[in-house]
Amino acid sequence: MPVVDINCDMGESFGCYNLGYDREILDFITSANIACGFHAGDPVVIDRTVALAAEKGAGLGAHPSFPDLQGFGRRNMFLSKVELKAFLLYQIGCLKAFAEYHGSKLKHVKLHGALYNMAAVDSKLAQTAAECVAGIDAGLILVVLPGSEMEHAGNGKGLRTAREFFADRNYNGDGTLVSRLQPEALIADGQSALRRCIRAVKEGKVDTINGSVINLKIDTICLHGDSPSALQLARLLRNGLTEQGIAVAPMSSFL
Amino acid sequence: MPVVDINCDMGESFGCYNLGYDREILDFITSANIACGFHAGDPVVIDRTVALAAEKGAGLGAHPSFPDLQGFGRRNMFLSKVELKAFLLYQIGCLKAFAEYHGSKLKHVKLHGALYNMAAVDSKLAQTAAECVAGIDAGLILVVLPGSEMEHAGNGKGLRTAREFFADRNYNGDGTLVSRLQPEALIADGQSALRRCIRAVKEGKVDTINGSVINLKIDTICLHGDSPSALQLARLLRNGLTEQGIAVAPMSSFL
Amino acid sequence: MPVVDINCDMGESFGCYNLGYDREILDFITSANIACGFHAGDPVVIDRTVALAAEKGAGLGAHPSFPDLQGFGRRNMFLSKVELKAFLLYQIGCLKAFAEYHGSKLKHVKLHGALYNMAAVDSKLAQTAAECVAGIDAGLILVVLPGSEMEHAGNGKGLRTAREFFADRNYNGDGTLVSRLQPEALIADGQSALRRCIRAVKEGKVDTINGSVINLKIDTICLHGDSPSALQLARLLRNGLTEQGIAVAPMSSFL
Amino acid sequence: MPVVDINCDMGESFGCYNLGYDREILDFITSANIACGFHAGDPVVIDRTVALAAEKGAGLGAHPSFPDLQGFGRRNMFLSKVELKAFLLYQIGCLKAFAEYHGSKLKHVKLHGALYNMAAVDSKLAQTAAECVAGIDAGLILVVLPGSEMEHAGNGKGLRTAREFFADRNYNGDGTLVSRLQPEALIADGQSALRRCIRAVKEGKVDTINGSVINLKIDTICLHGDSPSALQLARLLRNGLTEQGIAVAPMSSFL
Repeated sequence: MPVVDINCDMGESFGCYNLGYDREILDFITSANIACGFHAGDPVVIDRTVALAAEKGAGLGAHPSFPDLQGFGRRNMFLSKVELKAFLLYQIGCLKAFAEYHGSKLKHVKLHGALYNMAAVDSKLAQTAAECVAGIDAGLILVVLPGSEMEHAGNGKGLRTAREFFADRNYNGDGTLVSRLQPEALIADGQSALRRCIRAVKEGKVDTINGSVINLKIDTICLHGDSPSALQLARLLRNGLTEQGIAVAPMSSFL
Repeated sequence: MPVVDINCDMGESFGCYNLGYDREILDFITSANIACGFHAGDPVVIDRTVALAAEKGAGLGAHPSFPDLQGFGRRNMFLSKVELKAFLLYQIGCLKAFAEYHGSKLKHVKLHGALYNMAAVDSKLAQTAAECVAGIDAGLILVVLPGSEMEHAGNGKGLRTAREFFADRNYNGDGTLVSRLQPEALIADGQSALRRCIRAVKEGKVDTINGSVINLKIDTICLHGDSPSALQLARLLRNGLTEQGIAVAPMSSFL
Repeated sequence: MPVVDINCDMGESFGCYNLGYDREILDFITSANIACGFHAGDPVVIDRTVALAAEKGAGLGAHPSFPDLQGFGRRNMFLSKVELKAFLLYQIGCLKAFAEYHGSKLKHVKLHGALYNMAAVDSKLAQTAAECVAGIDAGLILVVLPGSEMEHAGNGKGLRTAREFFADRNYNGDGTLVSRLQPEALIADGQSALRRCIRAVKEGKVDTINGSVINLKIDTICLHGDSPSALQLARLLRNGLTEQGIAVAPMSSFL
Repeated sequence: MPVVDINCDMGESFGCYNLGYDREILDFITSANIACGFHAGDPVVIDRTVALAAEKGAGLGAHPSFPDLQGFGRRNMFLSKVELKAFLLYQIGCLKAFAEYHGSKLKHVKLHGALYNMAAVDSKLAQTAAECVAGIDAGLILVVLPGSEMEHAGNGKGLRTAREFFADRNYNGDGTLVSRLQPEALIADGQSALRRCIRAVKEGKVDTINGSVINLKIDTICLHGDSPSALQLARLLRNGLTEQGIAVAPMSSFL
C-alpha cells in the first residue's frame, strides 16, 4: 500500500500575535514543523504547540530559522559555520527538550524560509546543517527538497531524509519550483492539487509547467494551515489520498 | 574527608561583547552555571562555553533567567505560571542539548539574578521552577539559597539540592545576605573569606554581622570570574580549601 | 458647542503579524496613539501608520511602553529613573521624527499598558514621564486618567492634559475602572456606551457601578480598533455623538 | 589654514556590557558617530553618550545599522527599500530627538558596518539612504567613503558630504581599502599614520600599497576609541595635526 506523510509549519504565533490554525490543521497532517523562536514562536507558544501536536499524534519536528523575528526568517543572512551550527543546536535542542518534557520525542527537522532555500543550493550550508542534526540525534529525519544539496548532505551524514512535495505549487521542467513572482506559481484548484499528489505518490511523476513529466519520488507533502481555504485544501487532500488507497502516516513510521 | 563544590556563573558574553574570564576561572571551580541567552549569552557563546567547561571537567549547569538582555536579568518580572514554566523549559532544554551534543550531560540548574532572588522567597515561583526542573530530568541538582523557598520546593519535588554559600558576602543574623546597599555587604579580605569557607564546610557554622553564629550546612561555594581580582580570590580559596584537607569536587559526585 | 476627541491605539502590528483595523478605525477617531516598537510596531509599521494617520487627519501621538514585545507591554517592570527617561525619549523621539518626516507634527503622548497603569498611581514614575515629555516638546499633550498621578504630574510640568474616558468600561464609585477580572467590567451594549459618552461630555457626569454618580470632566474617549465589533461601536459612537450636537475633533484643536 | 574633522564611533555599549573609551576619545575627536540601538547601544547608553559628546563639544552624529545586535551590524542583510528607509528613519530620528533634548542638534549621519560597506557600492541602497537623510533634515552631513555610491547619492540629493580617510588603513591603487584579510591592511606605526594624515589634508594625496600616489581630498579622519592603544594613536594624531598647523574642527564648521 503506498504511503505518504503530510507536514505543516506551525507554532508561528508570538506573544499576543496569533498566526495559523494549528489546532484545526492537526486533524489532517501527520508531521508538525514547530517554530523555535527565531523567526516565530516563543517559549509559551512552543510549549502549547508541542503539547497539542503530541496529543493529536503528529510527528514532532523542529523548524529552525535564521534569527530574524521581524523578517519572519525570510531574509537571507550570511553566518559563519560556527554561528550556523550554534543557532541550529540552540533551536533544535530546545524543541527536543520540549518534546521530551511532554513525554514524546523529536522526529524530524525542517529548515525554515531563507535558510531552507539557501541550504538547498549551498553545499557548505547544507553540510553544516546536516552535521549538526546528526550530532544532536542520528535518528532524526531531515525534510528536504528532492535533489537539493540538503538531500545530498543528509544522505552523506547517514541521516534519513524525507523528500518533500509541494501540493499547490507548479514545477519547472528541471524539478525546481516555479517562482512565486510568476502568475502560474500556485495551483489554485484543489482537485488538480489532489491529482498531482496522487500521481506523485503512486507513480513518482509530476507534470511540469512546460508540459514535460519529471520523476519525483516523494515522502511527504507540504501543506499550510494559515487560512480557512488552506484548511479546506488540507481536508480535501487528506480525504482524497485516503480514498485512493494511499496511507497517510508520520514519516518516521515508514522511512 | 569534608567535600565542597565551587560554582561560578559563566557564558555571559554576547555577540561582540566579552564578559568574564571563563577560561581562567575554570581552573578553580567544579560547577559552571552557563547563561542560556535570556539575560546573557547567545548560541555561539553557549556552544563555546559548554565545550570549554566540559573539557575542563566542570559540572555543566543551566543558568536560566527572566527574558531581559538589556537589564541582565536583574529586573523583577511577573510572569504567569505558564510563562515561567515555558521560559525555563526553553533555556534549560537548550543547555541540555548543548551538553549532550558535546558528549556530556547537564548536571544542575541555578536560577539567575532577579529570578533567583524572587524564587527564594516566593513559594509559588519556587514550586513552578522545581516542578519544571524535575520534569526535564529528575536527576538534575537544584542550586539553592539555604532555607529558601527554592530549597523547600526542590526537596518537595524529590530533587537533590546544593546549598550555596557566598564566600565574599556577609550574612545577617537570620541567615540572609547583607544587602549590597550596605557598606559591609562584601568581604574584601581574601584570607577572611577563606577562613569563613573552611569553617562553613568543616563546622557548618557562619559568623554573622551582628556577632552571632548561625548553623549553615553548605554544599557549594559561589565564586565570580568577572575580574582579575575575582580570579585571584578564586585561586586563593581553591588552594586554601585543598590545603586544609577539604576535597573540592563537582556537586554531582557527592550529593 | 460641546467638543470631545476620540483616541485609539494603533500601529500594533509587527513584521508579518497583523493586528487591528487601523485603516478602518481612522474614519471614526481624531487622535492616533501609535506604538513605538517596544510593545508592538516596528519601523515599517510605524512609517506606514504615521503616513496613514496623517493622511486621514488624525492627531499623531506616541504610545510608548516598557520594552516587552513578547508580553505586549502588559507586564509590570521596575526601571530606574534614568532608564525610564531614556526609554521614553527613544520612543517618543522616533515617533516625532516620523511625524516630521511625513510633514506632520507629534501632538500627544499616551503611555501604554502596564506603564500607563503604574504611572497612574506612582507619582515618581508620573513625574519622570511628564518631565521627559515636557523636555521633548512643551507643546505636547499628555493623555491621562482623570485624577491620576499622571494628570497631576502633567499639570505640574505645565503640560496640557487630555482627560480620558473609557466608553465601554464601567466605573467604580471612586472613579477608578472596574477590574477586567470582574464580570461587569465591560459595557457590551453600544447604545448604553453612547449614552454614557454623551452624558460625560455634556454634563461631566458618569453613572457608577454602585448606583452613585461621579463628576468627570473629559476631553477624549478611548476606543478600540482590534475587531469588527469594535469598529461597529466606533461608528455608532462617532455618529451618535455628532447627532447629539457634540463636535468630535482632535484634542489639540480645543485643549 | 587647512582644516580637518576627526570622527569616531561611540555609544556602542549595551546594558551591562561596556565597549570603548568614549569619555577619553572625546578629548581628541570633533565628531561623534553614536550607535542607535540596532547594532549596539540602548536608550540609556544613547542618552549618556549624547549628553557626554554634547558637553565635550563634539558634533553629534547618528550611526545607524542593520538590525543585528548579536552580529554587531556586520552581517550583510537584504532589505526592501521600504524597510531600509523605515529602519534609518527610526534610528536617525531617535538620535535627533536625544540631541534636541540635550539642547544640541544632530549634525551628521554615518552608516555602520555592513550597511556602510554595502551602500558604498550599491547605488540603490545609497539613493535610499541619502533620500531618507535629506528627508529628515536637508542640513545633515553625510559621512562617505570618497568616490563611493554614497558620495554620489548624497551629492545628488543636495546633501553636504564629508569625505572620510582612514588613518590606520592602507589603500589600494584604485583608492579602495586593503582588505582586513591581508597582512598589510593596518598601519601599526603611529608616526606613519600621522604623516599620511598630514599629507592627505595638506596635499590631498595618499601613498598606496603598490607604490603609486592617488589624489584624495578628505574632510574627516576616522579614528577608534576601543582600546588604550587606539587612544594613544588618537592623541598622537590630534596633537601632530595641530602642530603641523592643521585646524581640527567639527565638520559642520567648515563644510
